[in-house]
Amino acid sequence: MTDAWLTSLIVPTPQDGFDLAVKLSRMGVKLTQPSDEIRGKLRAAYEQDTAQLIAVSQVIAVYFQTIAAANNYWRS
Amino acid sequence: MTDAWLTSLIVPTPQDGFDLAVKLSRMGVKLTQPSDEIRGKLRAAYEQDTAQLIAVSQVIAVYFQTIAAANNYWRS
Amino acid sequence: MTDAWLTSLIVPTPQDGFDLAVKLSRMGVKLTQPSDEIRGKLRAAYEQDTAQLIAVSQVIAVYFQTIAAANNYWRS
Amino acid sequence: MTDAWLTSLIVPTPQDGFDLAVKLSRMGVKLTQPSDEIRGKLRAAYEQDTAQLIAVSQVIAVYFQTIAAANNYWRS
Amino acid sequence: MTDAWLTSLIVPTPQDGFDLAVKLSRMGVKLTQPSDEIRGKLRAAYEQDTAQLIAVSQVIAVYFQTIAAANNYWRS
Amino acid sequence: MTDAWLTSLIVPTPQDGFDLAVKLSRMGVKLTQPSDEIRGKLRAAYEQDTAQLIAVSQVIAVYFQTIAAANNYWRS
Repeated sequence: MTDAWLTSLIVPTPQDGFDLAVKLSRMGVKLTQPSDEIRGKLRAAYEQDTAQLIAVSQVIAVYFQTIAAANNYWRS
Repeated sequence: MTDAWLTSLIVPTPQDGFDLAVKLSRMGVKLTQPSDEIRGKLRAAYEQDTAQLIAVSQVIAVYFQTIAAANNYWRS
Repeated sequence: MTDAWLTSLIVPTPQDGFDLAVKLSRMGVKLTQPSDEIRGKLRAAYEQDTAQLIAVSQVIAVYFQTIAAANNYWRS
Repeated sequence: MTDAWLTSLIVPTPQDGFDLAVKLSRMGVKLTQPSDEIRGKLRAAYEQDTAQLIAVSQVIAVYFQTIAAANNYWRS
Repeated sequence: MTDAWLTSLIVPTPQDGFDLAVKLSRMGVKLTQPSDEIRGKLRAAYEQDTAQLIAVSQVIAVYFQTIAAANNYWRS
Repeated sequence: MTDAWLTSLIVPTPQDGFDLAVKLSRMGVKLTQPSDEIRGKLRAAYEQDTAQLIAVSQVIAVYFQTIAAANNYWRS
């Protein structure tokens, strides 16, 4: 993973921040399980499992908190 | 999901902030499992499962923390 | 839920802040499972389950963190 | 629970802060399961369960974070 | 536990901060299960259980966050 | 573990911060289970377990929050 995939936390809107939080939550999984094939199979399973969907949602929430602070909460 | 659904974290009251936190917690799930039909079925299950209800509550709590900070805690 | 149930995060003492944190933790569950009857049944179950009691305690802890910051930690 | 049990987050040392964090983590459980008898039984169980001991430790960590901030990290 | 075991959160390097976070994460368990013998047995079990190792890692992460803030992130 | 492995939280880019967060999340596990051999076996298991991959992702998220704050969110 030598490509640059995260050059800034600054994004124009809260919604962009949310999208970035989703991206970061997935990257955390990708770095631990780099195989696209295995992740694809695993994804098919957890998409049907509410406990895991909620756990993913929790990870997104923590990243969003970081990104929101970085952007000074898009206050003005 | 090209529509704008999150244009600001600034809301007039703590209660509005809580409602927004609930919305964000659900959006995290929606982006991972986009099918309304599957989410509907899953929802019927986890609404009866306290462990998952509490897990949802935890996600809401983290989003509320972010939103409260964004609004300077509605201090006056 | 059109009634105002959360008009301020500012409370006079840390203990009042703790009580508010408990209230918010319950409201997160209530908004996901609005039926008083079902919640009553569920409550009877999780009150005997330490893992879930601890999970509730975790949610309260996050809300308390937010409320404590809102009140500038009641530093005087 | 009408007695005052939490009048301040300000404590002289980090260790006192840790003790207060432990107290708050227990109070969160107590408010959800007020029966001393039931809590006593439950405690006997989770004291042997590492997953739950770790979960308790997580709750303490969040309260400690709040208390440390309240005391400006006892920096001087 | 009348001995002073936590007199300051201020440590010279991030690595010392990490070590202190590990210490605090263990102390949270120790205060809930004070028996060295029982903890020893439990430890033998969870050291083989990735879910619990990850949960311990999460607790350390929260303490490290607190300690890093206390030390102003060792910025210079 | 007497070698210096964490001398600074300051890194040039968000992506470097993410890599450091991954490193810290692994170190938390390593300090609890120091055996490379056992960790290797355990890793083979949890790489196939989405619940644990998500849990790892959560730990990374908390470390990233700390590192992002340390770097003032790489704001410019």
